[in-house]
Amino acid sequence: MKILTEEIRRMEAIADAIAPWDRILVVCHKNPDGDAIGSAWGLAHALRGVGKKARAFCGDEIPPEYLFLTENETQDEFEPEHVVTVDVAAASLLPEGIDPEKIDLVIDHHPGNSLSAPLKLVDPEAAACGEILAELVDYLDGGRGEIDGYAAEAFYTALATDTGCFKYSNVTENTFLTAAMLLGCAEKGAFYRINKRVFDTKSQKRLALEAWAIGNVSLSAGGRIAFLNADFAMQKQFETAAGDLDGLINVIRQIEGVAVSIVLKQKEENLFKASVRAETGFDASAFCAVFGGGGHRAAAGCSFTSSAEEAREKLLAEAERRLP
Amino acid sequence: MKILTEEIRRMEAIADAIAPWDRILVVCHKNPDGDAIGSAWGLAHALRGVGKKARAFCGDEIPPEYLFLTENETQDEFEPEHVVTVDVAAASLLPEGIDPEKIDLVIDHHPGNSLSAPLKLVDPEAAACGEILAELVDYLDGGRGEIDGYAAEAFYTALATDTGCFKYSNVTENTFLTAAMLLGCAEKGAFYRINKRVFDTKSQKRLALEAWAIGNVSLSAGGRIAFLNADFAMQKQFETAAGDLDGLINVIRQIEGVAVSIVLKQKEENLFKASVRAETGFDASAFCAVFGGGGHRAAAGCSFTSSAEEAREKLLAEAERRLP
Repeated sequence: MKILTEEIRRMEAIADAIAPWDRILVVCHKNPDGDAIGSAWGLAHALRGVGKKARAFCGDEIPPEYLFLTENETQDEFEPEHVVTVDVAAASLLPEGIDPEKIDLVIDHHPGNSLSAPLKLVDPEAAACGEILAELVDYLDGGRGEIDGYAAEAFYTALATDTGCFKYSNVTENTFLTAAMLLGCAEKGAFYRINKRVFDTKSQKRLALEAWAIGNVSLSAGGRIAFLNADFAMQKQFETAAGDLDGLINVIRQIEGVAVSIVLKQKEENLFKASVRAETGFDASAFCAVFGGGGHRAAAGCSFTSSAEEAREKLLAEAERRLP
Repeated sequence: MKILTEEIRRMEAIADAIAPWDRILVVCHKNPDGDAIGSAWGLAHALRGVGKKARAFCGDEIPPEYLFLTENETQDEFEPEHVVTVDVAAASLLPEGIDPEKIDLVIDHHPGNSLSAPLKLVDPEAAACGEILAELVDYLDGGRGEIDGYAAEAFYTALATDTGCFKYSNVTENTFLTAAMLLGCAEKGAFYRINKRVFDTKSQKRLALEAWAIGNVSLSAGGRIAFLNADFAMQKQFETAAGDLDGLINVIRQIEGVAVSIVLKQKEENLFKASVRAETGFDASAFCAVFGGGGHRAAAGCSFTSSAEEAREKLLAEAERRLP
């Protein structure tokens, strides 16, 4: 893909280092998303394709929208000789039972990757870990690595989920070039089926929660701040499970004119967690730092040990002060 | 992009034919969408870039999400000598005042394009008309045509809107390759800004309508048929304008397990229009043909001069009979 000699050399060096390995455990992070699963299952598949024993592992249940990648995939059983991590930014994100001291190769796209290993292939320019792997596979086994229909679906899932189907600001020329290459390797209609499953299929409960968010968001500062209070009462009403509230901030941040969106989630009687999303011109990270939290410019979080009302007042006052 | 000699020759032939033209009116279809506007405004811009007088025209108001393409774009004033249509499939879709007998060049991606002109460049493989134009511009003025930042945004908008941001089944390798090329020509962050405006920004009214759809959809046949009745009562409640109801079918068709989605829109006291969307395995076109309507396999429509209840009963009975 990219005609960058240095990059090709790095890829070749990693592929050469892997060449003599066997019984490879490919590990992604806990609470796996599409990039984690697509990267781990795709790489394990490609390694088996060049004659190695390989197995993907995440330690957690696979979310239903990604089962199409894992359900029918037969993995090798063995005592691992080598461990490769994909899309794992830090030791705390490793599944139970994986020793951070015994990783042989780290492949990732998170800028601050803090894992230690004799070999590291970290490209923060890549929109997804799967974008790196789609390239690396070409170099496996002296250039005999191949992206078949399954691997194309796995790496495409990685790419599409980490970019919100090519909507986010992490999309680069290489992301699109990689998607083109993968589409050329995939069965006709495969990517449409994946997009429909991952982006355009919602449970009735999910939709009911979204309707609740639309009906209960409160706008302030002339419609530039959107605030949603997900307290125990609503969590009980919808019988929410862990993760059910996660996407609601994306519903309210769509509202025309909103510059900063806040969802306050009740965790205990007097413990609240605020998720914050900011559009250009508002620094969510600096905002949350005021309350002892942190994150990125566009997405950050912080906690409050107080009443919901007190947390709400502090958040709204500070947000208003910081509006561009 | 595509290394197809025949295609290159076609592009060159069209570019050569345009070379001596001036005072070019670029016309897109009425009720313009992102492909129509991006194609017309992008091509007019590129033509001005190679020294021609050119103006884009659609005859209708520009939807607010596409104003960023038209608001600051200075167009030439002149009496047209040549007329080029982009993304216009049939004469009935031409804006008022455009004579279908006086079109010099038709550029389109609709398979059944029925316009007549001395020159036609119709590629049904292209996901958007903008995909064809992004390639054609290269050949203008003996290869001196250029895609600058503005043209990149215009053609990207065309590409992204007609593919649902690369989600639909019309996306090909060439679509992704074109997107990569355009991103290389655009300002950093431009495509993210477009995606946010076009796909992730909704008015409060739009969101309230979506919440209404979620709360009022009725599921039948074990959750495989989703039906929504958008009668005068709800239209009055939300003070809906033309087009406000159009996207609601995309809200209900997301529901897990739904194979066919129907929205019944009241037009007059006893006139109802049904919009139908079908997933794989259900032919919406054949279904609507039973009631004198038509369309495509995935999207079709039909009308009823009866009560809403009668239309609903007929639709649900026929849909259930046809479920895969």
